[in-house]
Amino acid sequence: MTLPTLSARSHRIQPFHVMALLARARELEAHGRDIVHMEIGEPDFPTAEPVRIAGEQALTQGHTGYLPAAGLPALRAAIAGHYRSRYGLAIDPGRILITPGASGALVVALAMLADPGRNVLLPDPGYPCNRNFVELVDAVPRAVRVDAGTDYQLTPGLAADACDDRTAAMLVGSPGNPTGTLASAADLQGLAALAQRRHIGLIVDEIYHGLHYGADPAQALEHAPDATVVNSFSKYFGMTGWRLGWMVVPRDWAPVAEKLMQNLFISASTPAQYAALACFDEKALEIFESRRAAFRQRRDFLLPALRSLGFHIPGDPAGAFYLYADVSSLCDDSFAFAEDLLEQAGVAVTPGLDFERTAPQRHLRFAYTTDTSRLAEALERIRGFLAAGS
Amino acid sequence: MTLPTLSARSHRIQPFHVMALLARARELEAHGRDIVHMEIGEPDFPTAEPVRIAGEQALTQGHTGYLPAAGLPALRAAIAGHYRSRYGLAIDPGRILITPGASGALVVALAMLADPGRNVLLPDPGYPCNRNFVELVDAVPRAVRVDAGTDYQLTPGLAADACDDRTAAMLVGSPGNPTGTLASAADLQGLAALAQRRHIGLIVDEIYHGLHYGADPAQALEHAPDATVVNSFSKYFGMTGWRLGWMVVPRDWAPVAEKLMQNLFISASTPAQYAALACFDEKALEIFESRRAAFRQRRDFLLPALRSLGFHIPGDPAGAFYLYADVSSLCDDSFAFAEDLLEQAGVAVTPGLDFERTAPQRHLRFAYTTDTSRLAEALERIRGFLAAGS
Ligand SMILES: Cc1ncc(COP(=O)(O)O)c(C=O)c1O
Ligand SMILES: Cc1ncc(COP(=O)(O)O)c(C=O)c1O
Repeated sequence: MTLPTLSARSHRIQPFHVMALLARARELEAHGRDIVHMEIGEPDFPTAEPVRIAGEQALTQGHTGYLPAAGLPALRAAIAGHYRSRYGLAIDPGRILITPGASGALVVALAMLADPGRNVLLPDPGYPCNRNFVELVDAVPRAVRVDAGTDYQLTPGLAADACDDRTAAMLVGSPGNPTGTLASAADLQGLAALAQRRHIGLIVDEIYHGLHYGADPAQALEHAPDATVVNSFSKYFGMTGWRLGWMVVPRDWAPVAEKLMQNLFISASTPAQYAALACFDEKALEIFESRRAAFRQRRDFLLPALRSLGFHIPGDPAGAFYLYADVSSLCDDSFAFAEDLLEQAGVAVTPGLDFERTAPQRHLRFAYTTDTSRLAEALERIRGFLAAGS
Repeated sequence: MTLPTLSARSHRIQPFHVMALLARARELEAHGRDIVHMEIGEPDFPTAEPVRIAGEQALTQGHTGYLPAAGLPALRAAIAGHYRSRYGLAIDPGRILITPGASGALVVALAMLADPGRNVLLPDPGYPCNRNFVELVDAVPRAVRVDAGTDYQLTPGLAADACDDRTAAMLVGSPGNPTGTLASAADLQGLAALAQRRHIGLIVDEIYHGLHYGADPAQALEHAPDATVVNSFSKYFGMTGWRLGWMVVPRDWAPVAEKLMQNLFISASTPAQYAALACFDEKALEIFESRRAAFRQRRDFLLPALRSLGFHIPGDPAGAFYLYADVSSLCDDSFAFAEDLLEQAGVAVTPGLDFERTAPQRHLRFAYTTDTSRLAEALERIRGFLAAGS
């Protein structure tokens, strides 16, 4: 039997390289090796108890049917309340749509904005799925090199240079993955002005909002009010496996996003939506804030320690739970380095290959999604590994 | 502020017309009117207790993180066991991928098969989202008229006539929505042969499998072993709001589907996947079978009663929970008819407009997703409505 030819995009979309490392890590563990996991992009905390219990209650109460495509009205209102209390912003709940994760929101945002053959500006390095959301709709991901000089953020100047008549949108993240850096208010304002001038879309992924360890990050809806803002219950709210996120769109686009969602998703998970209502209770917010304090502690511990081992981490990554290190003074090829580090030292990290096109072999991402004692263990192992190699 | 131009597909994708009716029904209910809902495409039963309890336990046990993109290995194995015990088929669990609903599976299937500008054959009438999954990837939905003469199923002959060099795939459903009719083994074999001969994809949506009221429906994986088969925990298994489904793909395509899923979804809902494990227990299967018996009873009650009122329902709709009626002897315009029926008689049904291009104004879909006493009430009201109008 010969199978039919697959779509061109099937070939263009790449699997994550870290998957091979992850599989190898699991194999080593199955053979009894102890592995410190610093490759994992999700909080190591389970869903907070008040949220979990709200989910259990939703099930007990029989909340198991489809919901309206745009989401549970009470949850849309609760998110509007969150923008009010946390950012001092009045956002019409009609602009807030509940999605299956930020992932689902990104699919809708790109489907709404990008026709085939048009290009979408993506800072490089960046979140590896982004280029593939663009590929899904046969638009062209255009990697724009960003570096430590702009805190790894896409600036209005870089964006203006990379824009052309075929540009449909720009997609930025703050705090960013893999770098943990923030977009400034001025950047967001400048990107909004550019978007306005060139009639292109601006998508801001704020999935790591709430996880910041210095000054409050700028909120896109304040500085770029017409941006399409993507967010999620996965990270700050600790609900990764529930698959729940949201997007905020300009008022006129809400019906467009909604009809796309009706068709593509029917609705987002019902128990998850009921559970998420509890995320905005005092008790849950306290838990989230104490977890944020734990992440800050880990960052404050890990950052200087890695630097002292020769990992070059520019600037001051002030959000998410990632450090992105230049390893060119330690090795020629970060992928081989990561493989060796796993095999010889039992420490799993993510090589730059998944995050960037420009200098993947020079970079490694460390996730501090494991507790300080394990981070200390990892640092010990890395120290030994580097000593053995030199 | 002028907003950027939206993608062309944003304009091509249509909202469901039934939404306006649904909104009006809710409005009437808010004013105290009693409405019989026969427009709703989901079982009126809550998730079965063993499954719900398994979901609660999953939460209590902290199963709240991301899972592998392809799904929980135990669930993939359980689904393979289901194919073995129910259909006598040995399906490699490696070919089974867990998705966010059949909806997610259809996105992946089309993304895998259809390049922009290529066409996808869809029987008309059919499930309204199908054409929009095709639009998402900028392929061209090609409606192929099917009628009572072929049990509303796409036959190999009809498909061969509609196929051209730009055809990428055919997408059929059995039991079908909105017609409740089944594809025969011969149809599936013929479609598989055509797919093979023309090197095009064959996608079979079996979301209503299990809900059949006569002879067992043909299983696509038996008669079209290279087909991409889509299924779901939504309907027979009663888990609509949990957002969980699966797809079975040819072995060589499993890594392709998996990398698409990694990027588009990360993974399907974790509590849902643990809960779904309980779907294959004796106790749960008994509940599903007793619900099937209830649906059969409703169908056996509703079908002759509607016919006696002048609704023309051809053939013997033997699956799902829908009856698709030709109303041309009762009215000129099924949409206006549905509006009047709602306003004047308090019965909500779905007009053909959402399901077909050929003769939408001649058709109405009745869903028997409400119990027999309510169906009897609806029939009384319809009888009065028709008498008043004539
Ligand atoms: C930057 C970024 N955006 C979006 C996502 C998608 O997350 P989710 O779909 O769980 O909300 C992730 C997940 O790691 C991410 O890192
Ligand atoms: C024929 C058909 N396919 C697919 C779906 C999608 O269902 P889900 O995503 O809940 O599995 C539906 C839902 O009504 C349907 O009727």
